[in-house]
Amino acid sequence: MTAQVEHKELANAIRALAIDAVEKAKSGHPGLPLGMADVATVLFSRFLKFDAANPSWPDRDRFILSAGHGSALLYALLYLTGAPSVTLDEIRHFRQLHSKTPGHPENFVTAGVETTTGPLGQGLATAVGFALAERLLNAEYGDGLVDHFTYVLASDGDLMEGISQEAIAFAGHLKLNRLIVLWDDNGISIDGPLSLSDSVDQAKRFESAGWHAVHVDGHDPDAIAAAIESARNADRPTLIAAKTVIGYGSPKKAGTSKAHGEPLGAEEILATKEALGWHHGPFEVPDGILKAWRTFGERGRAAREAWQKRLAGESEAVRTEFARRITGEPDTRRLHAAIDALKARFNGEKPAIATRKASELALEALVGEVPELLLGSADLTPSNNTRTKGLKEIAPGDYAGRYIHYGIREHGMAAAMNGILLHGGYRPAGGTFLVFSDYARPAIRLAALTGTPAIYVFTHDSIGLGEDGPTHQPVEHLAALRAIPNLRVLRPADAVETAEAWQIALGRTTGPTLLALTRQNLPTVRTEPAPQNLSATGAYELSPAEGVAVASLFASGSEVEIALKAQELLKEQGIAARVVSVPSLELFLEQPEDVRRAVVGNARIKVAIEAAVRFGWDAVIDSDGIFVGMSGFGASAPYKELYKYFGITPEAVVEKVIKRHNS
Amino acid sequence: MTAQVEHKELANAIRALAIDAVEKAKSGHPGLPLGMADVATVLFSRFLKFDAANPSWPDRDRFILSAGHGSALLYALLYLTGAPSVTLDEIRHFRQLHSKTPGHPENFVTAGVETTTGPLGQGLATAVGFALAERLLNAEYGDGLVDHFTYVLASDGDLMEGISQEAIAFAGHLKLNRLIVLWDDNGISIDGPLSLSDSVDQAKRFESAGWHAVHVDGHDPDAIAAAIESARNADRPTLIAAKTVIGYGSPKKAGTSKAHGEPLGAEEILATKEALGWHHGPFEVPDGILKAWRTFGERGRAAREAWQKRLAGESEAVRTEFARRITGEPDTRRLHAAIDALKARFNGEKPAIATRKASELALEALVGEVPELLLGSADLTPSNNTRTKGLKEIAPGDYAGRYIHYGIREHGMAAAMNGILLHGGYRPAGGTFLVFSDYARPAIRLAALTGTPAIYVFTHDSIGLGEDGPTHQPVEHLAALRAIPNLRVLRPADAVETAEAWQIALGRTTGPTLLALTRQNLPTVRTEPAPQNLSATGAYELSPAEGVAVASLFASGSEVEIALKAQELLKEQGIAARVVSVPSLELFLEQPEDVRRAVVGNARIKVAIEAAVRFGWDAVIDSDGIFVGMSGFGASAPYKELYKYFGITPEAVVEKVIKRHNS
Repeated sequence: MTAQVEHKELANAIRALAIDAVEKAKSGHPGLPLGMADVATVLFSRFLKFDAANPSWPDRDRFILSAGHGSALLYALLYLTGAPSVTLDEIRHFRQLHSKTPGHPENFVTAGVETTTGPLGQGLATAVGFALAERLLNAEYGDGLVDHFTYVLASDGDLMEGISQEAIAFAGHLKLNRLIVLWDDNGISIDGPLSLSDSVDQAKRFESAGWHAVHVDGHDPDAIAAAIESARNADRPTLIAAKTVIGYGSPKKAGTSKAHGEPLGAEEILATKEALGWHHGPFEVPDGILKAWRTFGERGRAAREAWQKRLAGESEAVRTEFARRITGEPDTRRLHAAIDALKARFNGEKPAIATRKASELALEALVGEVPELLLGSADLTPSNNTRTKGLKEIAPGDYAGRYIHYGIREHGMAAAMNGILLHGGYRPAGGTFLVFSDYARPAIRLAALTGTPAIYVFTHDSIGLGEDGPTHQPVEHLAALRAIPNLRVLRPADAVETAEAWQIALGRTTGPTLLALTRQNLPTVRTEPAPQNLSATGAYELSPAEGVAVASLFASGSEVEIALKAQELLKEQGIAARVVSVPSLELFLEQPEDVRRAVVGNARIKVAIEAAVRFGWDAVIDSDGIFVGMSGFGASAPYKELYKYFGITPEAVVEKVIKRHNS
Repeated sequence: MTAQVEHKELANAIRALAIDAVEKAKSGHPGLPLGMADVATVLFSRFLKFDAANPSWPDRDRFILSAGHGSALLYALLYLTGAPSVTLDEIRHFRQLHSKTPGHPENFVTAGVETTTGPLGQGLATAVGFALAERLLNAEYGDGLVDHFTYVLASDGDLMEGISQEAIAFAGHLKLNRLIVLWDDNGISIDGPLSLSDSVDQAKRFESAGWHAVHVDGHDPDAIAAAIESARNADRPTLIAAKTVIGYGSPKKAGTSKAHGEPLGAEEILATKEALGWHHGPFEVPDGILKAWRTFGERGRAAREAWQKRLAGESEAVRTEFARRITGEPDTRRLHAAIDALKARFNGEKPAIATRKASELALEALVGEVPELLLGSADLTPSNNTRTKGLKEIAPGDYAGRYIHYGIREHGMAAAMNGILLHGGYRPAGGTFLVFSDYARPAIRLAALTGTPAIYVFTHDSIGLGEDGPTHQPVEHLAALRAIPNLRVLRPADAVETAEAWQIALGRTTGPTLLALTRQNLPTVRTEPAPQNLSATGAYELSPAEGVAVASLFASGSEVEIALKAQELLKEQGIAARVVSVPSLELFLEQPEDVRRAVVGNARIKVAIEAAVRFGWDAVIDSDGIFVGMSGFGASAPYKELYKYFGITPEAVVEKVIKRHNS
C-alpha cells in the first residue's frame, strides 16, 4: 500500500499539517517542518523502529527533535503514524493551554515525545545519554532485549551552542555508533544568513571528534536513505549534514530567516500548498496518504512482539528486574536497609570527616544494593569522591562498567544524565564542584522541568574549600539552585545527614536532587539514633534550648557545627537558644504551615547561619532576622582564616544575638 | 646580558618559584608551571610587548592564563619581569589572605593580571573579546594607537568546556588573527590520562573553525619561537599545540595527574630541582638570572614611549576621548541629557509598548550619544530589539561597525563582553532571552566578581512570552540572578522605567547590569515627570493609598500594571492600598534601613506580585506576606490565558487581600 503513495505526498502531509497548525495558533515555527519533512519522512517510513501504539516499548529507536522549535514536525509525525497522544484535534490546538501539542515538545505532556527540547543543544546532548544508556543496558541484558538506535534532528543553533562540543566529544570518544545526528543544514539563523555569525566546517569538526560525517541533499529521499544506511553501519556516531531549504515550498519565505519563527500567513500558505502540489484544505490529509503513514506507525509492531517473546523467555527474576530498571522504580527495601545500617554505624563511630567523604562511604554501602546506580564525575573524581573501590569504568567500546569519566564537561554530563534517565535503566549520579553548577544549569533546569531524577554530587560547597578562592567558592549557588522549582538541594551537616540525603535522592522519582557537600571535615552532630529520616522535612530541631528559647539558630551543612558552638557559648551567658538543622530549605518551605511554624518556633530572635548569601532565608527568619553568612564573593586563603575574616563564627553569632537581646 | 643566561635557566627560575610557592602554601598546582615554563619563557623573553612597570599601558600585548589554576606561573612571571604588584614577599604569601597572589589570578587584586580565570574555558572565551576589542579600536584609532596581540595559555580543560567551541567558532569566523592560543597539550587531566575521557583531534577541530593550527614540542624553545612567529603572521587566529610534560622535572610525578593539583612535597622538590639542574634555595633566584628576566620586563619600554609620543601627536579631543574610552568612564552629561529627553517624551506620549521596544527606543536615543556603546545579540536580534536603525555590523576582517552577531552562543557572548570591557574602549550590551541567562551564567558571574560593567539585554522575561512554553519561560531566573553579588537586575515596568534602567546601566562602572524586558505590551505607568531616576533606589511608591493604607502592593515589571488595577478594585471595595514599583529588588535591599522601612511602609497586609517564584521576596513582605506569582514552571499558551491560569491577575490579588483583611 505504501508503495502507492509517493514520498513527496508523504512529506507534504507533514508540511501541510505543520503550517496549518502554526497558522491556526498564530504562533510557531514553520521553517523547520517545511525544510526537514523529507528527512523525517525517510527516517520514519524506512528506518525508525517504533510502534506508534506503544510509545514506551523499551527497545524502540529513539527520535529526538533537538531543534524543539520545530515541534509541529514532531506532532505531525505522531499524528500521521497514529500515536494515540496526538489526534488531529490536538494538532488544531497547537500551542494552546492543556493541549498535547505545546510550543516546544514536552515529554511529560505528550507520549511519544522522548525528551523536552527547545533550549538549543540540549536535545543533542541528552541524546548522547540515550545512546550511552542503550549500550550500557545492552552490555547487561544483551542484544535480545536492548538493541536500538538514537536519531537526533539538530539545527544550526544546536551545533553552535557550546554544549554540543561537550556532547559530540564525549559521544565520539565512547564510540557510540548507535547515535545518528541529522543536521538541518539550511544556512539560515534568526538574524539572517548563517554566514553573519558562523563559518565552521561542521563535518570536519565532527570528524575531529571521532565521528563519521556525510553530506547529503536533504530533499533527495534516496540519498537520505543511503546516508542513514551508512550511518547505521558505521563503527562510530554519525553526522548526516542534510542540505535543506528552510521553509521549503514557501514562494516568498523559503531560504530566508522569515520562514523560521512566525506563521506564513493565509495567502502564503495557499501559495505554498500550490507550489508543493498539495490541493487539500486546512488540516486535511487524504485517506490514502494517512493510511500509508499509519502503516509506518505499525511497521515496528512485529519487532515489538518478537521482543516481547524474547523477554517472556527470560527468567522471572530478569523480567522483574528489567521492568524495575526501565521504569526507574527504586528497590526501597534494599535502599532503606543499607541507609539504616549506615546511619547506625555513623551514630556509633561519630566520624569527623568531610561530607564528601561521608558521601563516598554512603556510596560504598549503596553501590551493591542499588545496581542501577551509575557514578561519574566531570574530571573531579578524586575531589568529588564519587568513585567507589573497584568500580569498573566505561571505556570506548566497553560498556560493561558503572563509572563514567565525563571529562571536563559539566554541562554535557548533566544533559547526558537526563538522557540516561529518560532512556531508562540507570540512576546516574555525577560530580563536580558546586560553583560549576552554573555550567550545568540549563540541563539541571530541564531535569527539574521534566521530573527527571538526576543526582548531582556537588562538593566544595562554600568558602570552606579555602585557597582556590572566589572563582571556586560558591556563595550564591545554594540560593540560585533552591530557586529552581522541583529541584531538591540537600546540604547535609554531617555523615548521618549525608546518608539521609542519599536516601532522599535515591528514593525520589519525580525530579532531581543535588547534594552540596563539604571539602572540609565536620564533626558528627547527629549522635542519637533516629529511625526516621529527619532530613526529609527539610528542617528539624537538632538541639533544643534548655528552658524557653530566646533565640532560634537555623543553619545548614558545615554551619550547623557553628550554631551548636554558639548555642553553648550563649548558654554560658545565660541565654537559652535552640538549634535547627536545615538540610533542605526548599523541602522545609514545602511543609504544611503548622509543621513550619512548629520548627520555626516562637523565640524572639531568629538567626540563620550559612556560608552563602542571605537571599531566600527571610522565608524562615523574616526581614528582621539576623543573618550570619556571606554578603559578597569569597577570597583565597586557608578556610579557617576565611571563616574568621568573613565573620562566620560562633563568636559572631553570640555577639549579634546578645546585641539584639539587649536592644 | 640576556644572551648570557640560557633559556633553561630562565625557565627553571619560573619552575622553582612556582613549586616553592605551592609548597609553602601547602596548596596549589605545580604541574602547569613546570610543564609550560618553556613556552612562557619564550613568549615573555622574545615576543610579548609589555612594560612590566606600566601594566595598564593600553597598547600592550595581553597575556591571559586561561588555565588559571597555574597561577604560580603567572606570579613568577610578574615577579621575574619586575611588575611592581608581585614582590618576592607576595610569592611567599601565595594563596594567603590579602596577598596579591590568590589561588587563581584575580585582575581586581593584582596589577598585571588581565582577567580573572580558573573556571575553565572562561579565559579563552574572554580573550576572544580582548582580541575583538583590539581590532574594533584599531578600526577607530588606527595602527598608531592600537596594534597588539592577545596570547592565551589554555589547558585541556579549557578546550573540553563547551564555551571553548563558541569562542573559537566566533573568533575563527571574525578572523581575529591577533589571537594566539598556546595549548598545554600534556595529555593529563585530574582523573588520569586524558584518554580516559577525550580523543578529540584539537588541531583539526580548530582548523574546522577557521583557525591556523600548528604542533610543536613545548620544551624546544626555538620550535616554540618559530610557531609563535608563524602565528603572528597568520591571517587568522592560531592554535599552537605545545606538547608538554605536566610536572616537567619532577622525577616521581612528571607526566601524571599527581603533578596537577597538590604540592610536590619537600623531598620531591629537592629531587625536581636536582633533575632540573637548579641548585638554589627556596625562593632564591640568582642575580644574573633575575637581571636577565628584568630586561625582558623592560623590553617594551621603548615601544611604550614611542606609543606615547604618537598619542601626544593626536589632537586634544582625540587624546581625551581615547583616555575616556580606555578607562571606561561614561560621559554622564550626554547620557543624562539623552535620558531626560527620552523620559519627558515617554511621559508625554504614554506609549503602550513592550519594554523590549522601549529599550530599542532608548538605544535609538543613546547610540549617538554614547559612542562606546557596542550592541549585539546571540542570534535574537529581531526579538531582543538590540539593533538600532542603520547601525553597521561587524564582519570578518571589517571591524568598523558597532553591531555584533554573536551567533547562538550566549555563553561565548557574555565572556566576549567581559573581554571587550577588560580590554577597554567599549560598552557592550548583548541580548538573548532571559531564560537563556542560564547558558551564560558562569561568564555573568565573572563579570560580577571582577566588577566588569557588562549590560545584558534579556527579553521575554516571564510567562508573558506565551506560546513558547516552559522551556522558554523564566520563573526562577530573576531570583537566581538577584542572588549574584554585584549584579544589578532591573525589571522596568514601562517605557519610563526602561529609560531609567539604561541610565543606571550605562552610568555604572563597577559591575554588570541586567535588563529583564517584556515581549508583551505594557501601559505607561509613570505618567508624571520625575527629574530624578526613581528606579535608582530599587523601589519607590508609585501610587499612594487614598487614606491610611491597609495593604502595600509590591510589584516589578509587567506586574506593576496588575498591582495598579488591583489598587483600583480594592478602592471600590473600600480598601486603601498603595503600590510600590520594585524595578530592582537587590538595589532596594542595599538601601539604608530607614529608606527601606519608609518604602515598605506600615500597612498590615503586604503583597508581592511578580510572574516568577517567591524566592527572595520575603525580604520585603516577610514570611506572612501574600505572594501572587508562580510556584512552578509555566506552560504553552497565549500569555493572557497563562496569567489567568496561574492566577496572576488583579482579581486574584483582591481576593487574597480581602480574605486576609477579614481574617
